[in-house]
Amino acid sequence: MSVAPANHVINARWIVPIVPKGIVLEHHSIVIEAGHIIKILPTGDLDKKYRSYQTTNLPDHLVTAGFINAHVHSAMTLFRGYADDLPLSEWLNNYIWPAEAKFVNREFVRDGTSLAVAEMIAGGTTCAADTYFFPEAIAEVCEENHFRAQVGIPVIQFSNAWADSEEEHLTKGLEFFENIKTSSLISAAFSPHAPYTVSDDGFRQVLKHAINLDIPIHLHLHETKQEVETASTQNNRRPYTRIQELGLLNAHLQTVHMTEINDEEVQSLSKHQIHVAHCPESNMKLASGICPINTLIENGVNVALGTDGAASNNNLDILAEARAAAFLSKVITNSPTAITAEDALSMATINGARLLGLDNKIGSLEIGKRADIIAFDFSGINFQPIYNPISQLIYTANGQHVTHTWINGTCVYRNKLYTQIDLTDLKERVENWRKKIGGHL
Amino acid sequence: MSVAPANHVINARWIVPIVPKGIVLEHHSIVIEAGHIIKILPTGDLDKKYRSYQTTNLPDHLVTAGFINAHVHSAMTLFRGYADDLPLSEWLNNYIWPAEAKFVNREFVRDGTSLAVAEMIAGGTTCAADTYFFPEAIAEVCEENHFRAQVGIPVIQFSNAWADSEEEHLTKGLEFFENIKTSSLISAAFSPHAPYTVSDDGFRQVLKHAINLDIPIHLHLHETKQEVETASTQNNRRPYTRIQELGLLNAHLQTVHMTEINDEEVQSLSKHQIHVAHCPESNMKLASGICPINTLIENGVNVALGTDGAASNNNLDILAEARAAAFLSKVITNSPTAITAEDALSMATINGARLLGLDNKIGSLEIGKRADIIAFDFSGINFQPIYNPISQLIYTANGQHVTHTWINGTCVYRNKLYTQIDLTDLKERVENWRKKIGGHL
Repeated sequence: MSVAPANHVINARWIVPIVPKGIVLEHHSIVIEAGHIIKILPTGDLDKKYRSYQTTNLPDHLVTAGFINAHVHSAMTLFRGYADDLPLSEWLNNYIWPAEAKFVNREFVRDGTSLAVAEMIAGGTTCAADTYFFPEAIAEVCEENHFRAQVGIPVIQFSNAWADSEEEHLTKGLEFFENIKTSSLISAAFSPHAPYTVSDDGFRQVLKHAINLDIPIHLHLHETKQEVETASTQNNRRPYTRIQELGLLNAHLQTVHMTEINDEEVQSLSKHQIHVAHCPESNMKLASGICPINTLIENGVNVALGTDGAASNNNLDILAEARAAAFLSKVITNSPTAITAEDALSMATINGARLLGLDNKIGSLEIGKRADIIAFDFSGINFQPIYNPISQLIYTANGQHVTHTWINGTCVYRNKLYTQIDLTDLKERVENWRKKIGGHL
Repeated sequence: MSVAPANHVINARWIVPIVPKGIVLEHHSIVIEAGHIIKILPTGDLDKKYRSYQTTNLPDHLVTAGFINAHVHSAMTLFRGYADDLPLSEWLNNYIWPAEAKFVNREFVRDGTSLAVAEMIAGGTTCAADTYFFPEAIAEVCEENHFRAQVGIPVIQFSNAWADSEEEHLTKGLEFFENIKTSSLISAAFSPHAPYTVSDDGFRQVLKHAINLDIPIHLHLHETKQEVETASTQNNRRPYTRIQELGLLNAHLQTVHMTEINDEEVQSLSKHQIHVAHCPESNMKLASGICPINTLIENGVNVALGTDGAASNNNLDILAEARAAAFLSKVITNSPTAITAEDALSMATINGARLLGLDNKIGSLEIGKRADIIAFDFSGINFQPIYNPISQLIYTANGQHVTHTWINGTCVYRNKLYTQIDLTDLKERVENWRKKIGGHL
């Protein structure tokens, strides 16, 4: 799998390069050399050299940049549908946390991440910001499956199967970083869990190391109103203020959820170029709240999209998040022009790349970028008629319509078949977990 | 197509009969004779007689009652993606209404309805409450495609290609009713467009005929706050009050949208057993408002699901509506227990049947009901692990996972292939409309 991918040409009915925004190229081709996009040109203009490259013809397809899932806990896919429609505290205290305490180990993370990566590849996601215990197992699985990821180093006060103290999380995290720092597919971030589970000292250590290593911090923040109110009562200030006082706004900070934001915080997010991973379906399903993405975007804050874990979704379909983000924003702001199809597509791609600090490499189909590319078959009767392909992508399609996925120039999904994943083996491993975990229900 | 369907057995991994609510039968079979469900029993208990019937084995599938789309304008599928992300008035005044005025005719309705019916069948919808001009063309197409429908007789003050006055709509509507009244698949309703487009006299005539013929009234009502406010200013009362004063609450009334409801109206809807067709995705996309379905259901009001037209959605996937209804209700009421997966599934099936007054025939898999049945393939990696099949159906699946659709005992969609629809011909007809309509953009 470390073999350099072959030179390749993709001929497509429609290409949406993402940058510039809103553009649709008809009957164009993408030329890929050594995993990079080197040319995008009308298919009729391909010269002899490129016509000799390995070619994928996609005559009814829309081709665009791979989706970026800006927040996921991949391994939790093993808890998909394990507990639904419950109050958040009951869901966490009586189901998710006890199940995690009982079942999470290295194998759980390997198998759950394998399952999630398979699902994400089939749904057009080529890169994810993944955060869970055993980051080294996550990175291993992503490398094996040729999947791009920012793997978060979890930091949390509570003892768990991976580490017992904030200090041990940090020590193991630094070791992990040393092992992946030269990877072309894996990057690292610190992922202190949330203000209510990390100490001031934990945050200070995270900040110090993040600045030293020049890697981002990925943080659940203001997920619910209750989180903000409890902290305000107990600590006399909002979690955002505490994070600010601890200096975290000076780091490359990726905040997740942010359903509660006051005007001052909007200005601060904008000023400090803090990124927001919006997870509309998880926020709706858990009734966490609604992130005011329209206000954020109007104020120049970068907003990307995440699925969160499959236990609160219950799929990992970024296109469904894009549609939900647009729909929810429109109805909440009482404005059908809020978050257009083009906006939603940017959130699913280039904004995710910006959040990760990888927008020089991925997030759009531009010359020099890595070939993280996906294709949707638009020939189905449910796509007709096609007046506006971007509208069709966001408002009509879902992840099930993806037919091809390339990551770093390698085709990992072709005509709806995995090129590298052994599905039979994967399903067997997942079924074993289902028996174990389901028996515990 | 009028040949009685063969006796048939469906063996399934999971059967969700809808009634009783929440039940999942494992490794059960449905026996169908003359288009009716005559038995549901463990597959192992099938006797020799039934084992000799034509058999469909669905070893990895969830089988349930066909979905009912409680509000759609099928022919508008030809405007899918024609205009998005616009203010409602601009969308209607500058795009939809001029396009309707220019293009809608009998052929438009035939071709657009054919397209919608094909999409609905493939997405597991077996019955729709369809309302558009040329109801006789809608009924024709549904009969031809063996699709069940309540076809609305449009009544509107404005002149259009089908009729020029409220009176002409009624005259033509009565003629239409005479032609379909013995159909086993088509039922009729009066569909006065909305309070702001129908006169008091128009409503009185509709009511008189609806009572006479014993058919329902299907009405857009309180779609937006603006509709309610404008009427309140102009007529000194809310549209609901006007409808009530005109006596329409005494009919079998199907209201659509109802995003604005005060406490008195909730009580009135409940008392008069008025049905509500909730169209969450259209309401979100057009920023129309949010129907308080949780309050309605708590007060005993029957709430079903509709997609509305594809121009404001942009697909006809009832499963997507079910998921959106659950998610939106949870986040708006700040309660993750609001609208469970089981509730959402009832809304997509039996509640739709109740709204149509067809719950003695369809809406659940019960002995004696018509065999309107759908199957979902749950073998995909994205469905694993399966702890709770109903949760998986609502929170993980979408219409793309449907593999089989039976209507009135006839298999109209088998292994993702239509048994009766000529797709090549249909796509050609749609493409011709795209050229005409798109050229007008």
